[in-house]
Amino acid sequence: MKTFINVEDLGPLDQAMAEAFEIKNNRYKYQHLGKNKTLMMIFFNNSLRTRLSTQKAAMNLGMNVIVLDVNAGAWKLETERGVIMDGDKSEHLLEAIPVMGCYCDIIGVRSFAGLTDREYDYAETVLNQFIKYSGRPVFAMETATVHPLQAFADLITIREYRGYEGTKVRGYENRHDDEGNLVPPHLRTLESPTKVVLTWAPHCRSLPQAVPNSFAQWMLADPDIDLVITHPEGYELDPQFVAGARVEYDQRKAFEGADFIYAKNWSNPGVTNPADYGKITCNDRSWTVDTEHMSWTNNGKFMHCLPVRRNLIVTDDVIESPNSLVIPEAANREISCSVVLKRMLESL
Amino acid sequence: MKTFINVEDLGPLDQAMAEAFEIKNNRYKYQHLGKNKTLMMIFFNNSLRTRLSTQKAAMNLGMNVIVLDVNAGAWKLETERGVIMDGDKSEHLLEAIPVMGCYCDIIGVRSFAGLTDREYDYAETVLNQFIKYSGRPVFAMETATVHPLQAFADLITIREYRGYEGTKVRGYENRHDDEGNLVPPHLRTLESPTKVVLTWAPHCRSLPQAVPNSFAQWMLADPDIDLVITHPEGYELDPQFVAGARVEYDQRKAFEGADFIYAKNWSNPGVTNPADYGKITCNDRSWTVDTEHMSWTNNGKFMHCLPVRRNLIVTDDVIESPNSLVIPEAANREISCSVVLKRMLESL
Amino acid sequence: MKTFINVEDLGPLDQAMAEAFEIKNNRYKYQHLGKNKTLMMIFFNNSLRTRLSTQKAAMNLGMNVIVLDVNAGAWKLETERGVIMDGDKSEHLLEAIPVMGCYCDIIGVRSFAGLTDREYDYAETVLNQFIKYSGRPVFAMETATVHPLQAFADLITIREYRGYEGTKVRGYENRHDDEGNLVPPHLRTLESPTKVVLTWAPHCRSLPQAVPNSFAQWMLADPDIDLVITHPEGYELDPQFVAGARVEYDQRKAFEGADFIYAKNWSNPGVTNPADYGKITCNDRSWTVDTEHMSWTNNGKFMHCLPVRRNLIVTDDVIESPNSLVIPEAANREISCSVVLKRMLESL
Repeated sequence: MKTFINVEDLGPLDQAMAEAFEIKNNRYKYQHLGKNKTLMMIFFNNSLRTRLSTQKAAMNLGMNVIVLDVNAGAWKLETERGVIMDGDKSEHLLEAIPVMGCYCDIIGVRSFAGLTDREYDYAETVLNQFIKYSGRPVFAMETATVHPLQAFADLITIREYRGYEGTKVRGYENRHDDEGNLVPPHLRTLESPTKVVLTWAPHCRSLPQAVPNSFAQWMLADPDIDLVITHPEGYELDPQFVAGARVEYDQRKAFEGADFIYAKNWSNPGVTNPADYGKITCNDRSWTVDTEHMSWTNNGKFMHCLPVRRNLIVTDDVIESPNSLVIPEAANREISCSVVLKRMLESL
Repeated sequence: MKTFINVEDLGPLDQAMAEAFEIKNNRYKYQHLGKNKTLMMIFFNNSLRTRLSTQKAAMNLGMNVIVLDVNAGAWKLETERGVIMDGDKSEHLLEAIPVMGCYCDIIGVRSFAGLTDREYDYAETVLNQFIKYSGRPVFAMETATVHPLQAFADLITIREYRGYEGTKVRGYENRHDDEGNLVPPHLRTLESPTKVVLTWAPHCRSLPQAVPNSFAQWMLADPDIDLVITHPEGYELDPQFVAGARVEYDQRKAFEGADFIYAKNWSNPGVTNPADYGKITCNDRSWTVDTEHMSWTNNGKFMHCLPVRRNLIVTDDVIESPNSLVIPEAANREISCSVVLKRMLESL
Repeated sequence: MKTFINVEDLGPLDQAMAEAFEIKNNRYKYQHLGKNKTLMMIFFNNSLRTRLSTQKAAMNLGMNVIVLDVNAGAWKLETERGVIMDGDKSEHLLEAIPVMGCYCDIIGVRSFAGLTDREYDYAETVLNQFIKYSGRPVFAMETATVHPLQAFADLITIREYRGYEGTKVRGYENRHDDEGNLVPPHLRTLESPTKVVLTWAPHCRSLPQAVPNSFAQWMLADPDIDLVITHPEGYELDPQFVAGARVEYDQRKAFEGADFIYAKNWSNPGVTNPADYGKITCNDRSWTVDTEHMSWTNNGKFMHCLPVRRNLIVTDDVIESPNSLVIPEAANREISCSVVLKRMLESL
């Protein structure tokens, strides 16, 4: 694997899932692959889960890890060509990227959307410069429009929990067979498709669309999942990610019979009105997921990628309920990243 | 060992000391224990010695290490329940802690006292949330009221140096036997108890009581140590840490015949007057430890946990004298932390 | 090797070059040397290449690495003796340095010139305190007046590329022999000395003289190199680094027949007029290296240590041309550092 950005990069989904559960069962199985290989994690923006889970995955695989926070300890980077660089940016990305590539074998990049210039953001300018100039396999650790490590972990989580009732998830237990091996729930036969609802929820700041974009893309790639997206009118996601998905503007109707509720805020994607791009055009707190919302579902599990603003996105009660999967979902970030790094190591 | 906060967590002190000197003699002896185990160091506050010595100890034990500076590269964390999180804090500790626990095997936490709310600080709210929600063994890397890695290193240092005369400590030499092994001075028979004086000294900023609290607790646990605490009236430390210790308000009387002087500033603990908690209620520079002060002692060794404000806490002359143990004391931070991590690894 | 500051620290240059090319051919050959050895990298200033390449080199050698950004996560350090430390600096370098030495085996220091006090800068005060008080081998990761890891990498690069025509360097390819081994171009017989030109170029900020100082020192140490230095009058470098070098104030004359152009800005070294130290006394943009400048050379290669301000130091066209060596030059930072660390490990 040379890039990891979209669900297509994974190839057949069932094969990727099988690898994920194999690694979850034995995180150190492929440790020989990473010997004398170096991962460079480049952060243009803050990170908690991605920072920690990616380091952990790389170390599981025996890799060395270098973490670079571009805005702390390095310097600001110019991205445009032709500029006389007499301002506050002391290096050009066109030098910085191949240099970074010199000192490592695989690169992970975090670079959020600016949310002011839709065209620039959706062109994935920074990510694509890394792909073009680094000479290394590159994966997105959330970029302007995608967060594939999260979406992959989300799908792993859904496959683990679908069909379960009352799993105690806070303590992150899993079922094991008589020989002590994890039982992968995705091996069970489903009687009907799993209904997964991606729901918008309110937030006090403008957030990117990367998480809902990738989540929708991943869900649509799984034939056993019936995806419904619900959000206020005007918050339509970009068709390149959601084409073919059902959109239901009535949140209650969307929630009815749902097996999984995936809550997330995003700012206006500017699809219906380009001038609204990156803006907060709805503040309706009735979208906050509370116990009543969850009562409309089929004993639905609650999911969120974290970090989550409590009592804006979701109430304390719901996120702390036995049906909340937010912690095992985060734990699966180590697994999704392990599969990606394993594949990239195999392709070196 | 599942937590490391108080001296009781160590069990029998002589056994812990024996382990400390064994590890000092061969720092890599237990390297197999840490294979594929990850330490996560979480800093809510700055750190030099703790940051470096803890990483070194973990690497000696063969562990992987992830360092997280919460205020640099991550984000601010909400700690209260029920809050509508529409302010500057984008994640709740109740999610962040179990997530951190997902990606590691052992957690170290640094979280200083706020020094405005005594009850909150002395409840060790942040530390206890990590213990309750992380699902991992947790040790304090200085928290609101304790600094046990420091106090443990201090006791190792005192056991190494008591009975010695004129040890050259700047260069950090130790005596070795004919076979090249370190001679642990704690094995000698003492003729009389060691007199250790914990003395307050002035400072320009409000500092926590964590270091004197733990130091007193550790000294009181050693039956061969005669602890005297000296400070201006009103600076009484919390009884849970110092019950049974002799307090002498006359600094000169306290210093007479002392084998070890342990200097440290702390802000008013609010024990005698709760309204004074965290305040500087004494600025008396006559408490600064200088050559004259040291002349009152029994050729006493000088100790301080560092960082130290020179010429406020202690003069240049005293800290640079042959009797200053500040560097070997800091070096023993690697040893105390190695014992703690070894024990936690053994209990996984 | 106990220090790495000047070219003399390397001993015979041909031996060092042979080690460099051996390591470039097999980066992991000396991995056993670093087992249970810890490198501490201490940054008082920002860094990209040095940070990454030094970590990479240390990991290639099997070392553990601790990175300390003094201004992020630690605290400000006092450097003067006798000060009553009641200001913003909470620790003295005289404690901090031996403490850092306790937790590692080798120390790298980055500490830039302040550019206000020439005597202080050229005394290398911070670096020398590390050498004096840390008890460890110390190497400069750019200090007030030198950047030897860069100059060593520059010489490796020149020896690799001299005699080549039209090497495609962007992709960082090298020639290999029939058995797949890198052919070290430095083994070829040269028909005449290589003409290397160090040229000043304009910049919007005051920059140190560390890079040109070390570059000149290294070039003068190679008998096969004919060094010419060109800069505006008044920008004369310190004689301790450039004694014996030819200076040519006419940039065009200097460039004629050059095989390598090494561009770099530096602020006024204060050699001819001490009051000018650290100031920008020339802003002449005609010194910017453009295609016309390069046309005066002998199909010269372009070099710069990076980061580079495009269109101030050099135009987009020149830095992106096939004759630009900036990326392989940066890649060789891993090699120069590997040699230095290998030698220091051997001397422990």
